[in-house]
Amino acid sequence: MGAAMSDNSAPIGVFDSGVGGLTVAREILRQMPGERIVYFGDTARLPYGSKSKDTVIRYSKQIIRFLMTKNVKAIVVACNTASSLALEELQSYVGLPMMGVIHAGAKAAVEATRNGKIGVIGTEGTIRSDIYRQMMTAMKPGVEVCQKACPLFVPLVEEGFFHDSVTDEIASRYLADLKQRYVDTLVLGCTHYPLLRSTLGRLMGEGVVLVNPAFETALELRKALGEAGILRGRGEPALHEFYVSDMAEKFTAFATSIMPEYVKETKLVNIEVY
Amino acid sequence: MGAAMSDNSAPIGVFDSGVGGLTVAREILRQMPGERIVYFGDTARLPYGSKSKDTVIRYSKQIIRFLMTKNVKAIVVACNTASSLALEELQSYVGLPMMGVIHAGAKAAVEATRNGKIGVIGTEGTIRSDIYRQMMTAMKPGVEVCQKACPLFVPLVEEGFFHDSVTDEIASRYLADLKQRYVDTLVLGCTHYPLLRSTLGRLMGEGVVLVNPAFETALELRKALGEAGILRGRGEPALHEFYVSDMAEKFTAFATSIMPEYVKETKLVNIEVY
Repeated sequence: MGAAMSDNSAPIGVFDSGVGGLTVAREILRQMPGERIVYFGDTARLPYGSKSKDTVIRYSKQIIRFLMTKNVKAIVVACNTASSLALEELQSYVGLPMMGVIHAGAKAAVEATRNGKIGVIGTEGTIRSDIYRQMMTAMKPGVEVCQKACPLFVPLVEEGFFHDSVTDEIASRYLADLKQRYVDTLVLGCTHYPLLRSTLGRLMGEGVVLVNPAFETALELRKALGEAGILRGRGEPALHEFYVSDMAEKFTAFATSIMPEYVKETKLVNIEVY
Repeated sequence: MGAAMSDNSAPIGVFDSGVGGLTVAREILRQMPGERIVYFGDTARLPYGSKSKDTVIRYSKQIIRFLMTKNVKAIVVACNTASSLALEELQSYVGLPMMGVIHAGAKAAVEATRNGKIGVIGTEGTIRSDIYRQMMTAMKPGVEVCQKACPLFVPLVEEGFFHDSVTDEIASRYLADLKQRYVDTLVLGCTHYPLLRSTLGRLMGEGVVLVNPAFETALELRKALGEAGILRGRGEPALHEFYVSDMAEKFTAFATSIMPEYVKETKLVNIEVY
């Protein structure tokens, strides 16, 4: 039985504007160690957080056309901005199981809150889309959602300022409103933010639950693949593939710090031709 | 005599990865108020500072092909990263007067220094290219050039943190090495940085000359246009044109804060088709 015939041995396509989606790939492999991943990071055109809906849709379609050439069995939009702005349009564009990172994170947050006050932090694009609030109030009418764009977090993470007084100061300002509103649950609505988890947790205080949509999305994906009968059991070791649109070596270095055992090499793709 | 026949009434093409190049456009219009500008900001694909040489060259060529459709008489690469990585290749690509922002800034710095120690701050791409150091040591052998990449400055400017304790703290760290080396001249090697001029000036101290390549480039352009006999005198008011690859409204808002009287509207261009 050739690979092309066997849906469950096909890889899962995962894409993001850059390295952030690796936090999603990492959760997928933690929870489904038999799966194989084809990852694309749009490092030439990042960040997506400050781009318009039309542009994010156009870029996402190019990436999906590229992933389809790798015969993926499912696609995970591991970017909150692309999930917010483009998922609906993309789902009607391809005939594969496809999921973003918003739904699972929103669901976990409405289940976790006790006082009905939920905070969401993300890029400008994600927050402007208002999707977390819309989805959470649809899931649990009456919840109060307080959203805050944090545009400096991604560059701070990429500069390596994970534990730093500057990051503390900027985070204190971004989180001030949310604390004042007494949210008891905070959605880390951008794939870079779990890398600031300890700072965010300390500033919000012990009583506040931090929701990592990457973790929740991997759970949801496992369920969906299981139901579709295309979950791959543990077999021969899977060879993951990593592609970017620019700066392959820098990506490999960052990726190796996030998921040390998986990223052997990163290949360059001219994504504009797809 | 139609516009297409009259070289001197044709516009000057200016491009940058985003809004930063407006500091160059502003200097051009201050020094040559009769000129007309066609500006392109690649807001869909910014920042250029973290991209590879190949990608920056490919993107710059698309932009030049777009500007050529506007019958420009000269092109200013108003982006330090693109000037650093792509100018040489681009100059052989078109048959028009073309200049970047590096040469004029480097020249002003070697003329300004008294102790022969010059600092340069810029994006990762500009600093990695080493072009300021190479150009300045060629112009004045023996000068000592101390370079520092400051990747957080652009996001801080775009967040509007011009005068802010966080910007002070980050700038202090970035500038520490340069101060320790006693540079007496500092090149603001990224078009966003003049917007942090007061912070940078205060931290470096009164004795240090800050060189703004935008100002120096406009001087050099005036000289080049004059020598080529295509300087436009004051005539009917010039109608400038502004184009971007994404987020036209946000660009107009930011541009209006930098050059209030000039930016009436900004048009969207799908630059990938050029």
